[in-house]
This record gives sequence, C-alpha cells and structure tokens, in this order.
Amino acid sequence: MACPMDRNMAQFGCNMAEASEGLLYGEYLQLDKVLDAQRLVSAEHNNEVHDEHLFIITHQAYELWFKQILFEVDSIRELFIQTELDERRMLEILKRTQRCVLILKLLVDQVMILETMTPLDFMEFRHYLSPASGFQSLQFRLLENKLGVRQENRAKYNQAHYLNVFSDGPQAKQLRDSEIEPSLCDLVQRWLERTPGLEEVGFNFWQKYQKVVEKVLDVEEQNAKRETNNEQVRATLLHNISKKKEQFESVFDPKIHDALVQRGERRFSHKALRGAILITFYRDEPRFNQPHQLLTALTDIDALITKWRYNHVMLVQRMLGSQQLGTGGSSGYHYLRSTLSDRYKVFLDLFNLSTFLIPRAFIPPLTQQMRYRLSLVEALGESKDSSSAKIDNEEDQ
Amino acid sequence: MACPMDRNMAQFGCNMAEASEGLLYGEYLQLDKVLDAQRLVSAEHNNEVHDEHLFIITHQAYELWFKQILFEVDSIRELFIQTELDERRMLEILKRTQRCVLILKLLVDQVMILETMTPLDFMEFRHYLSPASGFQSLQFRLLENKLGVRQENRAKYNQAHYLNVFSDGPQAKQLRDSEIEPSLCDLVQRWLERTPGLEEVGFNFWQKYQKVVEKVLDVEEQNAKRETNNEQVRATLLHNISKKKEQFESVFDPKIHDALVQRGERRFSHKALRGAILITFYRDEPRFNQPHQLLTALTDIDALITKWRYNHVMLVQRMLGSQQLGTGGSSGYHYLRSTLSDRYKVFLDLFNLSTFLIPRAFIPPLTQQMRYRLSLVEALGESKDSSSAKIDNEEDQ
Amino acid sequence: MACPMDRNMAQFGCNMAEASEGLLYGEYLQLDKVLDAQRLVSAEHNNEVHDEHLFIITHQAYELWFKQILFEVDSIRELFIQTELDERRMLEILKRTQRCVLILKLLVDQVMILETMTPLDFMEFRHYLSPASGFQSLQFRLLENKLGVRQENRAKYNQAHYLNVFSDGPQAKQLRDSEIEPSLCDLVQRWLERTPGLEEVGFNFWQKYQKVVEKVLDVEEQNAKRETNNEQVRATLLHNISKKKEQFESVFDPKIHDALVQRGERRFSHKALRGAILITFYRDEPRFNQPHQLLTALTDIDALITKWRYNHVMLVQRMLGSQQLGTGGSSGYHYLRSTLSDRYKVFLDLFNLSTFLIPRAFIPPLTQQMRYRLSLVEALGESKDSSSAKIDNEEDQ
Amino acid sequence: MACPMDRNMAQFGCNMAEASEGLLYGEYLQLDKVLDAQRLVSAEHNNEVHDEHLFIITHQAYELWFKQILFEVDSIRELFIQTELDERRMLEILKRTQRCVLILKLLVDQVMILETMTPLDFMEFRHYLSPASGFQSLQFRLLENKLGVRQENRAKYNQAHYLNVFSDGPQAKQLRDSEIEPSLCDLVQRWLERTPGLEEVGFNFWQKYQKVVEKVLDVEEQNAKRETNNEQVRATLLHNISKKKEQFESVFDPKIHDALVQRGERRFSHKALRGAILITFYRDEPRFNQPHQLLTALTDIDALITKWRYNHVMLVQRMLGSQQLGTGGSSGYHYLRSTLSDRYKVFLDLFNLSTFLIPRAFIPPLTQQMRYRLSLVEALGESKDSSSAKIDNEEDQ
Repeated sequence: MACPMDRNMAQFGCNMAEASEGLLYGEYLQLDKVLDAQRLVSAEHNNEVHDEHLFIITHQAYELWFKQILFEVDSIRELFIQTELDERRMLEILKRTQRCVLILKLLVDQVMILETMTPLDFMEFRHYLSPASGFQSLQFRLLENKLGVRQENRAKYNQAHYLNVFSDGPQAKQLRDSEIEPSLCDLVQRWLERTPGLEEVGFNFWQKYQKVVEKVLDVEEQNAKRETNNEQVRATLLHNISKKKEQFESVFDPKIHDALVQRGERRFSHKALRGAILITFYRDEPRFNQPHQLLTALTDIDALITKWRYNHVMLVQRMLGSQQLGTGGSSGYHYLRSTLSDRYKVFLDLFNLSTFLIPRAFIPPLTQQMRYRLSLVEALGESKDSSSAKIDNEEDQ
Repeated sequence: MACPMDRNMAQFGCNMAEASEGLLYGEYLQLDKVLDAQRLVSAEHNNEVHDEHLFIITHQAYELWFKQILFEVDSIRELFIQTELDERRMLEILKRTQRCVLILKLLVDQVMILETMTPLDFMEFRHYLSPASGFQSLQFRLLENKLGVRQENRAKYNQAHYLNVFSDGPQAKQLRDSEIEPSLCDLVQRWLERTPGLEEVGFNFWQKYQKVVEKVLDVEEQNAKRETNNEQVRATLLHNISKKKEQFESVFDPKIHDALVQRGERRFSHKALRGAILITFYRDEPRFNQPHQLLTALTDIDALITKWRYNHVMLVQRMLGSQQLGTGGSSGYHYLRSTLSDRYKVFLDLFNLSTFLIPRAFIPPLTQQMRYRLSLVEALGESKDSSSAKIDNEEDQ
Repeated sequence: MACPMDRNMAQFGCNMAEASEGLLYGEYLQLDKVLDAQRLVSAEHNNEVHDEHLFIITHQAYELWFKQILFEVDSIRELFIQTELDERRMLEILKRTQRCVLILKLLVDQVMILETMTPLDFMEFRHYLSPASGFQSLQFRLLENKLGVRQENRAKYNQAHYLNVFSDGPQAKQLRDSEIEPSLCDLVQRWLERTPGLEEVGFNFWQKYQKVVEKVLDVEEQNAKRETNNEQVRATLLHNISKKKEQFESVFDPKIHDALVQRGERRFSHKALRGAILITFYRDEPRFNQPHQLLTALTDIDALITKWRYNHVMLVQRMLGSQQLGTGGSSGYHYLRSTLSDRYKVFLDLFNLSTFLIPRAFIPPLTQQMRYRLSLVEALGESKDSSSAKIDNEEDQ
Repeated sequence: MACPMDRNMAQFGCNMAEASEGLLYGEYLQLDKVLDAQRLVSAEHNNEVHDEHLFIITHQAYELWFKQILFEVDSIRELFIQTELDERRMLEILKRTQRCVLILKLLVDQVMILETMTPLDFMEFRHYLSPASGFQSLQFRLLENKLGVRQENRAKYNQAHYLNVFSDGPQAKQLRDSEIEPSLCDLVQRWLERTPGLEEVGFNFWQKYQKVVEKVLDVEEQNAKRETNNEQVRATLLHNISKKKEQFESVFDPKIHDALVQRGERRFSHKALRGAILITFYRDEPRFNQPHQLLTALTDIDALITKWRYNHVMLVQRMLGSQQLGTGGSSGYHYLRSTLSDRYKVFLDLFNLSTFLIPRAFIPPLTQQMRYRLSLVEALGESKDSSSAKIDNEEDQ
C-alpha cells in the first residue's frame, strides 16, 4: 500500500499510474453487476416485450438516485446530530441539501421517459411482475422515514400497514430503525429551537413580534369600525381582521399550536416554528444567510417530492386507468392520490410560513447587541483592533 | 409453468397473485446487485471522500441509460436490416428513436448534478481512480460505432487508437464487431436510397429538382447583369449567385459529392442524400409523414450527443482546468474538445440539409401518379368502391 | 413592393438586402412595446421592490407562450373543422400539437424561477396589485375553453362565475364565443367518430371487441367457479371478475356511458371513444400511425396542463400560505386546488383508456380488406402494376 | 394617495380592494402592448407563414428574460459598487446571481422549442426579415458588456465592429456606456482583491501557499530522480513535474500572469486570482460561505451562456446549413462558432481555477487569529460574555 506522502504526490497529478496495477473504469463502477441486472421476465416466459427493458432501467435509475439522496440525507443528519452544530459545517449541510434538490428535479423529469411506454405495451408484461410493486421500494420508504413522514400520517394501503409488504428480515429492521432514529425533520427542529434571539432574556424576539402584530391589528380594527358609509365594506373588513387574528392566535398560543400538531396540520414544535420565523425576518444578517438558504432548500425538497408524487400519479392513471388495480394488487391510483395530501409534507410549516409573516416595515428592529450577535467578526472590523495584536506572534509558526 | 390461457387471464387483471410465489420488487430489479455496486476507493484507502459517492452514482446512471439507448438502437437496426422495410414497423422505429431523444435530453441535464461536486472535492479522490477514465466506457464507444461514427474520423487520444484502452478480450471483440456490422447510419442510408420517386423512370425527382434550381439561378444571374447603376451591388450579387451555384453543383455532381465524403465533410451516399431531400420536400404526403419525423429525430440525436459532449467538456474544464491531465492520463480537455467537430456527427448531411432546400413555390409539383403512390388507401376512398365488394365475404370469419 | 419573382429570388438568398430599406431586429420584434411594458407599481408608490420585476417578466413570458399555444390550437381547430379531414394535413396537426407539448413543458419548468422570489419579498408589493389576479388571465380562460373545459365542470371562484371578473366588453365576448365555438375536444371527437372500421357493415370492430371481452371473462368466471380448494381465493376471483365486467359494461352499454358523461366522469361521445380504442389497437397500421401519435400528444397536453396547475398550487401555497387570500381576493390556494380534479381534464377518456384495453393476443385480427383500408398505396406495391401504366404519360408535363 | 399606514394595513391583507379603483391583471402586465407586438411580415406580404409566429414569440421571450437578467446584473453591480461591500448585502447578491443561473438554464432549454420549426418552414419567411438579425440584439450585447466581455476579445463580424449594426443613436450610446462602466467582472475582481488574508502582514496566505507547493514539487522531483529502474518512467515523471512547475510558476510570477492576461488567456488581476484561491481553500469558514457560493454561481453563469451559445450554433446549422448566410447577411454559423472560444468566458479564471488547487492535506492551516477573522460572532460564543452585558440596557427601547 502506498504511503500517505505518495498519495499526496499522486493527488498533485505527477505520479504515473500504470494500467497493469490500477483500476479500470468498468471495474471501478462495478459495471459487471450494474449492467447484468436487467432480466426481462417477459423473455423468461418466451414472450419478450421490448418495453420491459425501459421499465427496468428507469426503475433502477430511480433506485440509484434514491441511494444517493439517502446517502446525502444520512450525512446531513450526522452533521446535525452533534448537540451544538459546528458553524463550519453549515456550508456542507447546505450544499448537500441543494444537491438533493437538483437530483429530485431530475427524478421529476425522468417520469416523462417512462411515459413513452404505452398502456398497451405495459399490458403485455405487467401481469408477470405480480406482486412486485413500487410500493415495495425499501429505499423510498426509508427516505420518507428519514426525512420525517410520520407513521400516523401515512395513508393505508389495502387496509394494511406499509411495513406488511416487507418480509420480516433485515429490510423490516432497517425500516423500523428509520422510524425510531431522529429524522431530518426532528434534527432541523432541534437546530431551529437553538436560534439565537429566541431567548426570553435580551432581544426576546417573540414578545416583540406578538406586540407588533397585535398593535397593527388593533389599529386596523379601529379603522374598520370607523367605516360607517358602507355597512357591507365594514362587515367584510371586520370579518377579515377577525380571521387574521384567529390565524395569528394559532401561533401565539402554544396550546392551539399543539392541537394543530396533533391533528397533523402542523409539524414543528412551537419553539422551532418561532426559530424559522426569526430567521426569515433577519435573513440578511450574516449569521442567518446560510440558515435562510437551508430553510428554502428544505421547502424545495418537500415541493419536489410532492411534484414527483403527482407526476407518478398521472403516469399510473395513464398506464392503468383510474379504476384498475396496481401491479402489486394495490388500488394504485387512489392510494397514490392520497399521498398528495399535506400530511405527507415533512416541512409543512415552512411551506405555510408565509401565513405568519409581517411586512418589513413592521419587523422589530435589531438591537445593537443583537445585530452584533448575528454578524461576522471581519465585517465588524474586529480583526484590526488591539485585541488581535496579542495573537500576532503565532503567525510565524 | 402457467399455460398460455392463464397468462392471458392474468393480463386481464383478474387472477390473484400470491406473494409467496411471485416476484418481489427488489428481486425483479436485482437491487441486490445494483445497490451493492458503490465501493468508494477513497474509503478503501481510509480516506473516505463524501463526494465520491455522487461521482459513482452519476456514472452508473449514465451507463444504465447508455444500455437502454444501445438496446433501442440495436432494435431499430434489427427492424431496418430486413431488405425491404415493412411499413407496419415504421411507428415502432420512430417511437424508439424519439425515446432515445428524450433519454439523451435527460443525460444532458444530468451533467448539472455532477457539477455540484467542486474541483477541490474531486481532487481528494481522483488520483485513486487512475488509470480509470470515461474514455474506457465500452458502451459509449459501442454507441458511437453503432450509430456510425467512422473510425477514420476519430480524434487520436494520446496518439493512440481508441481500442488500445480495452484489453484484448470480449470487450475488444464487441467493439471490433460493432465497427463491422452495419451501423444505424448505414441502414438509414440504404432505406433512403429506396425512397419512392428517386427512380429515373416516372416522376424522376432529381432531374426536375436540378432543372428548377438551374433555371432560377440563371434568371437571377440575368437580373444581376442588368444591374448597371451600382457596380458594387452588381459584383456582390454575381458573387453570391456564383457561390450558390457552386454549392448546388456539389450536390448535382456525384463526383464532387464523393470527394466531400472522402474528406469527411459529407457522410451519406449520393442516392441517400437525394432521398432525404425528396422526403423533406413532400413530407406532407401520407407516405412521407413517418419518414420525415424520423429524419428529424435522427438529427435530434446527433444534436443532443454533441450537446452532451459540450456539457461534458465544460465539466471537465471546471474539474481539471484546461491544462490538467484527465484521470486516465488523457489530456482530457483538449481531446474532448476535438470530438465536438462535425466529423463526429453521424447524420451530418441531415444537419446541413437546409443548404439544398428550395422555396416551396419552386418545389416540382407531384404528378397524379406520384401523389397516388404517396397516399393512403383510405384517404383515396378506395375502400368503398366495387373492388372491395369481392372481399366482403371474408368478414364473417 | 417587390414582385413575386423577386421574392423567390430573395428566398434563394442571393439578393442583397440594404439596411436602409429593410427591417431591423428590434423593429421586427416590436421591442419598443415589449420591453417598455414593465412598470413596477411598487416604484410608483415610491417603494420599489426589486422582485416585482421578476414577477412581471415571468407573467409576461407566460402570456407570450399562452398566445403561441392559442395560435397553434386555433390553427389545429381550423384544420379539423373541414368536414372531411384532408389526410395531407395530419402531419401539420401532429407537429403543432407536439409543439404545444414542448411549450407546456417549458411553462412547468418556469415555475421554479418564480419560486426564487420569497414570500417576504412578495409581501412587500402584493397589496399594490389588488385586485389584479391570475384569475383574470383572459388567455388562460380562452385556452381552457378552446381545448374544451366544460363550463359546468368549472369550480366556483368566490361563489361567482369565472366570467364575472371580466368587464362586459370585447374580452367577455371573446370568452363567450370561445364557449360556443367547437372546441378542440369537440373536433377531435368528430374526427374519431369517422375512424374507418367503426361502421357496422364490413369489419364491425365493436362487435368483435365485445365478443372477445365477453368470451374471456366468461371463461375466467368458469375457472374461478372451479376453484373449490380455497373459498377465499374463489370469492376474491369472482369479485374481481365481476368488477371487471362492470367496467366493460360501462363502455358496452351506451346508456351507462352517457350517464357517466352527464356526471362529468367521461367526456367523449360513445362513438368517439370507440374510435380511440380502435386506433389504439391497430396503431401499427400505416393509416393509424399519425392518429395514434396524435392521441398520445393530446394526452400529454392534458397531463402537462394539470402538472402546471399543480406546480402553480405549490407556488401559491409557498407565497401566500394555504390559509391566505389570493391577490385578487380569491381564496387562492383552495380554489386552485379544486382545479386539479379530473373534471378539468379535457381528454379524460384518453387518460383512462387503459381501462378498456385488452392484451394483444386477444385483439381481433384484421381482415384482408380492413388491412388494405389501413395501408399505404406504396407499401402494397400498387404503383408498379398495370393500373399505373395508363397515367405514365402525364409525367412529361 | 394612500397614507403609509394604510399601505401597511393592506400588506396585512385585511383591507378590501375595490375593483373599480384597483389594477386589473391585463393592465398591470400591460398586455395591450405585449400581446399586440406580433406582426407577421409574411402576412404583410400576403403570404402568411404559420411558423413565423413561433419565431417571433420565442425571440420576444428571450428578450424579456434578457431584460430580467440585465435588471439583476445591474442591481448586483450597484451593490458591489460601494467601496466597502456591506456584508449584509451578500445574501441578496448571491440570490440574484443564482436566479440568473436558473433563468439561463431555461433559455438553454427554450432552444428546443424553436427547433420544432423546420428549415423548409424557415425558408418561407426568412428573406422577409432581412437585414434583421439576432446580431442586432441590443440587450444581448449589453449583457456581454456588463458581464465583462472585452472588446478586444470579440470576434469580428463580417470584418466589422459589433457596434456597426446599431445606428448612431441612444442604443449606440448605451452600448458605449456599458463598455466604459465597471463590469460585473471588474467589480468581482475589486471585491476579491479585498479578501481578508491576502495582506502580507499577518496570515500572509500567498507566501504560505507558494512555500507548500514548492516543497511538494521538490520532494516529488527528488523521488523521481531516484527512480532508476525504468528510464522511461523516470523521464515521464520528470516531464510531468516540470510541466506542473511551469503551471504554478505562471501564477506565482505576476509578470507571467500579466502576459497571459494580455494574450486573453487569463482575465483576473493577480490579486483577484489570489483572493479566489484563498476563498476556495477556506470555504468552510463562515466568512467565506457566501463568497464561495458566489464564485460557483458566477462560473455557472459563464458555463450556461457558453452552453446557450452552443445550442444556438446547432440551431443555426440546422436552419441555415453551415455554408449559408445568416438572416442579417452574417456568415452566421462560422461567426457564432467563433464566440464559443474561451475568449468569451468572462470568469475564465474561475473556470480554470482547479489548475491551481492543492490537496486538502497541504492547505496551510489557519492560525487562531485568522480563523477568528473568518468566523461568526455567535459561533464563537462572544455574545454571552461580559462584553455584551453593557449593552443589555438598550433592549427595552
């Protein structure tokens, strides 16, 4: 084995690889396995159907990309799992999340390729597949669990638990583990709960936020009451204001919030939601640049998964009709359609965050101290003052 | 094994699959192989680099789709190989070609995912890969050969023949076979050479086409000569006309054409090129609807492969710089850049076809007989006349 | 003005354009209008919001493409409107329909650009827009009507008719006209009703199709009844078969079909649906190649419009929350969500066609006469026999 | 006019817009202009060509998006133009740059729509357009200039300066101004030159970087010289090392660098290039997260513009052939092909940056002071210590 120094040399690109010793492209990618995994069951029944090849390749490509997304999600969870997130890992977390976004975009587009198979072609081989079904995709279920789909939010499938289609071996264990381990959603919440500025001492964002919302709504109510020319306008205005108050009350009052979480209409803990609102308001402060981008990317992931589900539903309707049974005996179309509900959105509260935003002019101004906490050292010109003089000596290491 | 009748029943979707007997999703897709083929060499050197996983998955996804494209191209060649193409296979040929277009579009987009890996990350593991290189992708070379890239048009790679990187076993044999077998380009040419209307008896398209071009250019030359007010305008007009004549001469005179083929500036036989022009002019005749769409799809394939090459070159420049060596020791960037030349375009003549088009007003009108030859039986109302009466009896079969 | 001959000359590219006389790029595209139509209302309120520019440009790009799609749909309807469709226009119809598919794909992707605007940015200017709303897009409503969305299938919008938001001028007239004129859906149906092979004399496809379905289902029922070992299996089989029978009955019996049309669960006339099934089964016959491709493209259009609607819903949820009011006072999110229903699918029956397909092995074989009717003259070798001899003389025209 | 308070109220969504007063969708988007700007010149010559409509709409959509990109680029330049960039604007700069990336991606895809027009269709109307040509797109030239394409790097067009096609009015002035104003490239350079850590006092990155590169290459040279078994291996190794040294010398020695800039093979000032390398190495430090993402997005912009150029070249080849003249009399294809050269890449040095990277193991470690300079206040726990106590009082403002 090469010594580390040699390795570094090689990295510089000067060392010469000799073909006899090194890796070949096909070996490296293990193409002997990957490209030997397309067995047409139609051919095994002496009735080869051309389009089955496309069906297999498309699904394998999906599974390859699912593996990549799982790899990224696992690594992101790993980085989050440390009790106090190292800020120096934020860029990695963000880049990996944004990569998942790009991959999911590709997966949505990929549906159009499978749509070139016509229902009549599919009919020629789909009965051979039984009871195989996409519902048995271990990786997709793992992905749902690791992102944070809650078991109680899952739609029933033929009146059965989703785990039923996996025999009771290592796969079932993997799935059960993924239900128990902290999901990305859990970890993002814990991180949001630590958002600086949420503390009740000091800046106390939440108190300021509540005050300003209440004040504005009160003024508006007064104005509405003064509208006496047109009774209908007055009534509508008051109705709108009261509806608005109700919405805000649902986030001001933790009990109402928790009740909505119970009903599956919210997901985040109250504190995490407060953190997300705080970051959204002060995103331009250097400390929140990366967090804000991360919240956007997480919303993108949810949006793309739900778009993928929708594209998949359209495909299934075309291939099987809305009344047909799925290949695995599932009442495919209707089951899939039910997974489009908001209950499958993991970052639902980020999706609905706009409900709790307020115009920039009303956002409580940062205090000097708070602005300092959210800043970069360099940007404040900290580095050039006397405090740094004392460590100048180390430079000649 | 099930009897054929049972199979048909199952196709109807009424039979009940029993999980114990049938296929499972993971077995069907052989995911044990596909998802067990990601071995990070960086990890084997105790220096796991996160982004190597993306590098592997992306390349495996490419190879999966290359396999699908090869599968389609082989099947299309098979359908063409019959001496007289059965018109009832035209739709299949067209649909499979259009499917290749969609897949290639996806492959172009896929490059953006690999671009999320930064050069600094790539540097951490690329030396482990040596001498593996995309230049060793068997399937990509097979695809080039089966489409019809000519060996004499290939750019040299480190002054060596492209076959050199493949050890002298079954892979080299596959490649040599693919050089010898009729390529898609060969077969498309043979088919174009049979285009109805090219015969010298009857419609004699080529003669008509030559006559009209010559007449128009002559008239135009006369007009130009009459332009006596402005000597410069006159000179430019005459220059343009003479250049135009030269262009057309290169297609009228088979010897000039053949010389251009020798120089790699054209690909098609003279007769095939004539067929392509004929189809383009009369594409609205039912007989030519499918052929015209096919010519468009073939041009799309060439366009997308060259776009893919270009995207790949950009990626390599970002990852390695334009002066660096490729992972397999190739002077990557410059070699790849050379494959962007028109010499790698298989359907070059379709790409350049517009050079030989003439305005619709000049297209020689079809004779009654020729229009008949290019029509559908039904459209002519043939089926309702007396001639069909005599076969009505068979209907009660 | 130039004489026609000169025009032809110019087409050949030899004439010299003189800048002083001709068009300039900006004039041709009327960029003085197009690029002078971005007026930020936020700027007019002395509160310029950067992202309003993106909001305007994106919507204008949508409207430009809507105009293009309307232009194509109008031209396709025009071609269809002739009582007997000229087969020589099929390629044009198909190409224009496929172009609409490509444009719609772009419009779906375009949503992601608008998603780079954040809710907080949108909040800064959305109140200025009131009551402007996408619901007032004349072109989108025209498109729905011209494709064939039925007025009785429309979701209510704030309890009001969709026409209400348009003041009673030329726009309202255009919309009412578009409700009355034959829609693309109407015209496609008329064309499908003329599908050769539907006639009760001769091939009589429908009778053959019914017979084969009934026979298969009967045999299957017998088999199921013979299953006496396992009562549960037997019951399930019989249940599945009876459900299948019911499905087919709904298409065999025109009365059931018409009732479903009344309920908005089907769209096509019974005869048109029969034509679509016929074309699907015999798509490989030359006569049906183009029609089959057209049915696929029409389904794609429906699929992409519904995907666009879905992407738009996701965008609105992100920008306004699921509980907020839309810019035009609409309860945006919930209204839009209701337009995702199958009632807005124009080619719903093509989407669900797979329900009525049968395996290839059961498709009634074509009779010799029927195959002849669906063929090309050329493919049958018609042109070389004696019948063509008598018109050879015209060749020397 | 509404008072500011009312405006804020409206932002909250409670006020009621009255249709009679407010904006309508079509007015807001000025659709009377935008949708009234499609005048087919073919129709004016009484020879309406269907596909001219697509040609116009596609180009107008391009121009709309160009306007948006220019709007973003101008705003980014504005933010950069301040002598000391406010760190609180970095997120805006980044988001707007990434938005340009998404738009450019759409513009690349959009080419495929115009490809549905066939050369034969284009031939029917392209002569009417003369001398209009995309070469006269004011906005595209402005975009090139504002990004930073250098006039001396431009390819000649019919032996003429690019400005020649614009008459000597406001357009020419806009273009000349855009040549003189600081381009995005200029501003990015100035900003890179201020990268903390480049100063010769303190961390002195450049000295450390040079030392480590030299040391490694020296060791490697020693090793190579010790290779005495195989003379050929030895020679190759020494050759590679010497080539590597030469590459690094070209960046170590400002004179060589400046000579390359003169020849158009580099663009950035030496100091800016040093800043880019520094940021790339320490991208994980909070201070460099945003700058690193920005460098990536700028490279993406260059990559996508060059991909767009390539797609456009392919389109032109299909429409006109490689030998034909462009619509504006330009020798279109060959001119366009010449703009694919690296001389048109504005951020060429970012593209080629990988040439100067070194493996992570060799990257000079940050000193404690340097790490502090690149950190967030919060991450260092600065906010909780005594220093913050003294400003706690302000909280009750």
